[in-house]
Amino acid sequence: MKEVMTIIRMNKMNITKKALAEAGITSMYAKECLGRGKGTVEIPRYIEGAAERYQDMIEEMGIQGRLIPKRMINVIVPDKLVKTVVNTMIRVNKTGRSGDGKIFVMPVSESWRVRTGESGDEVLDM
Amino acid sequence: MKEVMTIIRMNKMNITKKALAEAGITSMYAKECLGRGKGTVEIPRYIEGAAERYQDMIEEMGIQGRLIPKRMINVIVPDKLVKTVVNTMIRVNKTGRSGDGKIFVMPVSESWRVRTGESGDEVLDM
Amino acid sequence: MKEVMTIIRMNKMNITKKALAEAGITSMYAKECLGRGKGTVEIPRYIEGAAERYQDMIEEMGIQGRLIPKRMINVIVPDKLVKTVVNTMIRVNKTGRSGDGKIFVMPVSESWRVRTGESGDEVLDM
Repeated sequence: MKEVMTIIRMNKMNITKKALAEAGITSMYAKECLGRGKGTVEIPRYIEGAAERYQDMIEEMGIQGRLIPKRMINVIVPDKLVKTVVNTMIRVNKTGRSGDGKIFVMPVSESWRVRTGESGDEVLDM
Repeated sequence: MKEVMTIIRMNKMNITKKALAEAGITSMYAKECLGRGKGTVEIPRYIEGAAERYQDMIEEMGIQGRLIPKRMINVIVPDKLVKTVVNTMIRVNKTGRSGDGKIFVMPVSESWRVRTGESGDEVLDM
Repeated sequence: MKEVMTIIRMNKMNITKKALAEAGITSMYAKECLGRGKGTVEIPRYIEGAAERYQDMIEEMGIQGRLIPKRMINVIVPDKLVKTVVNTMIRVNKTGRSGDGKIFVMPVSESWRVRTGESGDEVLDM
């Protein structure tokens, strides 16, 4: 059992939910978050004379560098469906521009459905 | 050490916090989230003539199908207290109706208390 | 690969982002959350005559005991950078007072960059 956590652009929520549903994944939870990857800023760290620019960049990132509003969608699935979720996420969220997001897969040890008290893969609504 | 993540109804926060405290669990964090399980919608996918209805349902889930505002409570506990947390969560959140929520248990590798720099089970406030 | 999740005071976000950037960590996501540790309230549970006070405290925690608004910052890094992140977090967030926060390290199984479809440590922007 795995949790697939995906950080995407805000305007990609609906298309992502639709694509997951088409792939048979209807159970999920979502949150707002702020995020940033490395971004498109190039740090010429190892180039002669770059030290000063590097300091500038650190200042920007640390003090004014903003985290961007994003959406996080989490889906918990049996191991055999991880690749399906990952492929779906990439297919509908890939624009080729910086900021498309990241996908992380985390192990899940156990699961329960509160309504019935049952546990295991069958509570994953697949 | 495990993280027990529980998604519950919004109106169950206070009773859940109280029940956790009674069980000796006072350290926790909580977030707002949106979520849905499989819900009560039945997809007659494998029945003759169901193809059209299935497409309708996919549309609903993907485009208009709403994620419901929920509360997520996370508690990080030593392994031996996982069952206590799970039982408490089920006991106070079970109504028997769809939407009661889910519990997921995740492995936690390490923990630190920022104030003292100490690490291990003793930072879990048990 | 590990996720380092840190819960800090709200007013520590900027100094924490700056310190992470100085340590070479620019990729992160952050959320609002509510949280509480054990706090400074002492429960004299095993002392003679404490039963009544204990019940009072349970009431307070469960019903009026508030969760405090906090910030959660999550950074996903290769294993060898976990200690750098933990040390940075403790250095800039430690005031010595209750409420400084906690750090939890979670295993991460896989990662992908949506823009390129690549996976592994190289998507971690280190």
